[in-house]
Amino acid sequence: MIVIGEKLNSTLKAIRPAMEARDSETVQDLARRQVAAGANYLDVNAGMFLEEESDILTWLVETIGEVTDVPLVLDSPSPEALRAGLKVHRNGRPLINSITGETGRWEAVLPLVTEYDAGVIALCMDDEGMPEDVDGRLAIAETMIRGLTRAGVQPGDIFIDPLVRPVSTGSHYGVVALETIRRVKEDHPDVHIACGLSNVSYGIPGRKRMNQAFLVAAMAAGMDGAILDPLDTDLMDFVCATEALLGRDAYCMNYLKRHRSSQKEAALQKG
Amino acid sequence: MIVIGEKLNSTLKAIRPAMEARDSETVQDLARRQVAAGANYLDVNAGMFLEEESDILTWLVETIGEVTDVPLVLDSPSPEALRAGLKVHRNGRPLINSITGETGRWEAVLPLVTEYDAGVIALCMDDEGMPEDVDGRLAIAETMIRGLTRAGVQPGDIFIDPLVRPVSTGSHYGVVALETIRRVKEDHPDVHIACGLSNVSYGIPGRKRMNQAFLVAAMAAGMDGAILDPLDTDLMDFVCATEALLGRDAYCMNYLKRHRSSQKEAALQKG
Repeated sequence: MIVIGEKLNSTLKAIRPAMEARDSETVQDLARRQVAAGANYLDVNAGMFLEEESDILTWLVETIGEVTDVPLVLDSPSPEALRAGLKVHRNGRPLINSITGETGRWEAVLPLVTEYDAGVIALCMDDEGMPEDVDGRLAIAETMIRGLTRAGVQPGDIFIDPLVRPVSTGSHYGVVALETIRRVKEDHPDVHIACGLSNVSYGIPGRKRMNQAFLVAAMAAGMDGAILDPLDTDLMDFVCATEALLGRDAYCMNYLKRHRSSQKEAALQKG
Repeated sequence: MIVIGEKLNSTLKAIRPAMEARDSETVQDLARRQVAAGANYLDVNAGMFLEEESDILTWLVETIGEVTDVPLVLDSPSPEALRAGLKVHRNGRPLINSITGETGRWEAVLPLVTEYDAGVIALCMDDEGMPEDVDGRLAIAETMIRGLTRAGVQPGDIFIDPLVRPVSTGSHYGVVALETIRRVKEDHPDVHIACGLSNVSYGIPGRKRMNQAFLVAAMAAGMDGAILDPLDTDLMDFVCATEALLGRDAYCMNYLKRHRSSQKEAALQKG
């Protein structure tokens, strides 16, 4: 599983003040802790700062790059902010989050993907919006994958986001997301999935449990990447258990290692 | 989901002494609590009592029948014990647990299924043992489904057990079970699955988490019945959350109801 750490996001109240105050220590600490917890990428979003977005994103990319080597996911709908972040990115190959099938966004973001040889997260929506059904989402995914590969992007650098909507607002949304994942991976085994998890449980109580269940079901459907909170040890336990269940952990070695280290941690905290 | 409560089993040390002492109160209490927690069937096993098995199974069926209406799952490889239990069963239509593709067992158990118009759990094994791969298990499932329906058993009265083996002993066993479930349900939508869960995590620590993940993945693969501990509220929470995710809970009504009642329970226990 490709774990994209979601915590460095200006929409999260816990970290926004540190971004606003250019508090390197807090930002770097959160970056380090996510990587230590298993993040393969770190999502970085400064969208709440509006006209300051490009400046703060630039600062974030530089500041985080000082303490970790994992590539960053530059998270913005703004081509200007994306370009600002891409210019200063030094941690290997970044991901752009995101492109869509919307004409304007497609035309503005695609040149950045090719110019900076970046990977890209592609959301299943276009000028008509977010389709209600699997076939509609797949059609958009197909169009985007075709357009990206034609522009020279490798399938392995494309991450499809099926766009998960809350099951509280439509009981079909869970199945739509799972089935979209399954069919994208069936038709394009080299293309990755990068799925946000928590939206599925929006508007209902006991969200953690629902998110855990969705994670497992989506992994079983073929999801190989997710934007999530790597500091949520329960959720990361489920990532690890599901990898073992799906035959991706010979002799359960990773599972056992994780279990041992979390027991050590618990013993240390107990004193 | 068809929940088969697993607690009334003589292999479990917590309940065996009560069975041995013919302690009706304890047995009836455990029956009632499993039903209150959501069991649709109660598995009843007296196999540890060897030559007393038939007598104790008879007593269990009668004793449990006094306090609950849910049908029982008569759990024994012994045709004599099964017949003894079937004779006194009054709670609607029982399930026989189990038939297999083994010649001797097939010939001994099939007449009981038809004579007592019972449902039946059919294990994916035959005279050659338990196949290592999905195709082998499916072939046995096909043979059993064909043989049972030819004998007049309705598809909806057949429960296939894919036979889950521990992922610690073979990293393919999770996928074998999930894929067997998926394909049995694809080819026979009316046939049910009755899957034991806990075997998957045998031999590793943190078994609850692994069992929860397997439950969710198996439900997503099409599992519509499982033998499990309905008194495990975390596990039952996952049953409920997964039903909502899979679009089987309009407006999340059951999920919300369960959440409210468990909060009430927690408040009561807090005083």
